[in-house]
Amino acid sequence: MELVKESIKNLKEYKTNKIDFKIKLDANEGKNILLQDIYKEGIKFNEDFNLNFYPDNDAYLLKQEIKKYLNVDTSNIIAGNGSSEMIELVIKTFVDKGEIILSPIPTFSMYSVFSQIYSAQFIGIQSNEDFKVDIDKLIEKSNELNPKVIFICNPNNPTGNLINKNDIKKLLENTNGLVVVDEAYMEFAEGSMVDEISNYENLIVLRTLSKALGLAGIRLGYMTANQKIIDVINKVKSPYNLNAISQYIGVKALKNKDKIFEYIEEVKNEREFLYKELNEMKIKAYKSYANFIFFKWDINNLYEKLIDYGILIRKFSDELEGYYRVSVGNKNENERFIKILKEIIENEKS
Amino acid sequence: MELVKESIKNLKEYKTNKIDFKIKLDANEGKNILLQDIYKEGIKFNEDFNLNFYPDNDAYLLKQEIKKYLNVDTSNIIAGNGSSEMIELVIKTFVDKGEIILSPIPTFSMYSVFSQIYSAQFIGIQSNEDFKVDIDKLIEKSNELNPKVIFICNPNNPTGNLINKNDIKKLLENTNGLVVVDEAYMEFAEGSMVDEISNYENLIVLRTLSKALGLAGIRLGYMTANQKIIDVINKVKSPYNLNAISQYIGVKALKNKDKIFEYIEEVKNEREFLYKELNEMKIKAYKSYANFIFFKWDINNLYEKLIDYGILIRKFSDELEGYYRVSVGNKNENERFIKILKEIIENEKS
Repeated sequence: MELVKESIKNLKEYKTNKIDFKIKLDANEGKNILLQDIYKEGIKFNEDFNLNFYPDNDAYLLKQEIKKYLNVDTSNIIAGNGSSEMIELVIKTFVDKGEIILSPIPTFSMYSVFSQIYSAQFIGIQSNEDFKVDIDKLIEKSNELNPKVIFICNPNNPTGNLINKNDIKKLLENTNGLVVVDEAYMEFAEGSMVDEISNYENLIVLRTLSKALGLAGIRLGYMTANQKIIDVINKVKSPYNLNAISQYIGVKALKNKDKIFEYIEEVKNEREFLYKELNEMKIKAYKSYANFIFFKWDINNLYEKLIDYGILIRKFSDELEGYYRVSVGNKNENERFIKILKEIIENEKS
Repeated sequence: MELVKESIKNLKEYKTNKIDFKIKLDANEGKNILLQDIYKEGIKFNEDFNLNFYPDNDAYLLKQEIKKYLNVDTSNIIAGNGSSEMIELVIKTFVDKGEIILSPIPTFSMYSVFSQIYSAQFIGIQSNEDFKVDIDKLIEKSNELNPKVIFICNPNNPTGNLINKNDIKKLLENTNGLVVVDEAYMEFAEGSMVDEISNYENLIVLRTLSKALGLAGIRLGYMTANQKIIDVINKVKSPYNLNAISQYIGVKALKNKDKIFEYIEEVKNEREFLYKELNEMKIKAYKSYANFIFFKWDINNLYEKLIDYGILIRKFSDELEGYYRVSVGNKNENERFIKILKEIIENEKS
């Protein structure tokens, strides 16, 4: 269409998997640990729950629970439809047409996709060969390019790499731009920047309920930052952006800190199992601080071969051709995945 | 904050009412007619409902129901978080920085707010003194200003005015821009443009479940347009934009066409009651084709006086100082509202 704006003319649609599977290990979704009773009982509401009214624009009750979960004040929080809305809000508020958004790459693809949609210029800084981020190189590039926003996915999707806190502080202290640390997977690691938001004027931290809390279906993400940033982003946030039921379920879910931490421990153990097994099979797997493992394999069509067994993982293309990402499933799923990999290797040999 | 982009520096936060009320007639929310059992039984899910998985990116089941509800093909539909997301998607896809967005005014405030956020130039074309839209004037302005998008809220919020179909066709045929007809309130009127989407390349129609279906809490809006437009907007739509539960409830709700039409009839009858009563009281009320009535009253602090009685309506300011909008409530609510108005008039006299 000739009316389409220039920046999106070459944009590709985000296509999601429509494949039949028995074991879904492609999207790093957590397990349904918190709300298993939903399937038996349904979601029960209080009597004063009016689904015909617009939801609470300020998500007051939800922010109270996030406050307890993260130990930050409610005035430092904005919640919305997944981290996607949080990423968009940052760009919408701060990045004008043609301005630069910087990120170490490879990383979560939506930073560059949203940059394109918002007519910003996305510049990816290649990580080291082992996918570790060279923070000094990033600072150097930041000084050279003067980006409005730097997105850091930490732990990084899809590599699983973790940047340590001191390196992020160093970046914050040596850039004029905003540093957005996307901590979607931080529950599976250590080194959150949440407790630093009052120390840095240019720090925004993104979190989600889709991973450690296993609630990707409700699309609930949030950000925390100092109040100056929150106040200005609140002006840009759409009214009533987060529906009433996601708020309601979010409140219920965040109360289960014990269950969440128990689940996190399970994921960490299973992650070590997968990592060990992959390495023993001489597959190059990267140390991961998230709920997935990134690995490289030369066997052709690994993705398709796994689908024949009903197992769905994530494959990459272009510069990451030959690389794969498998989510950490439950014990049975992970054992099955390893067993099938071994079978595929055997078949290749014969 | 100096990092904030230029266009939003003067933007004001959208503040919502935090007032205690007994009767809420300020936001044109429909009544909870479809899902009254939610409060008794909770929402029941199928066994294969996985809240830990990302929702269906294509909202397949929901689109099937919208197809039946509107008689349009699923390939002509995009659904998301309320009409807000639909308005944003249109601007994000088509309107570049500095380009013009046109709308008759007064109208729904979010067209100009989003224009500002997206660094577009919003130009409002003043309606006639009786708030009717002069389509020839709009076409003339459109030819003069060459807007990328023209937003038409029809029936119009807050005035209740309806532009007839032939006038909208005339506009479509005489502009180079996209015409977005926001039919949030169209169930309460006649003259939808939905059945014209295959006849006009530049037509987009927005609809919502917040009004006639009484589901503002789930934030579900959708658009329908020819497939060329839908395909390009789908590239810009965020992945997994609509959460799984809103999709689920939307499907359930749209199946109740009979109940919905019954409710619409009730609203129309009650609207006539309010209109007649207001006019009999010598209050200037405008003929409405929506689920609210717009009126003018010179008595000072009417809004505050009604709040003293626990009734919440909408008041306007600036050029619309002295104008109010009251949602059509149920029989009891409307009778109570009229009774209180009469009391306020009596008190003024004495």
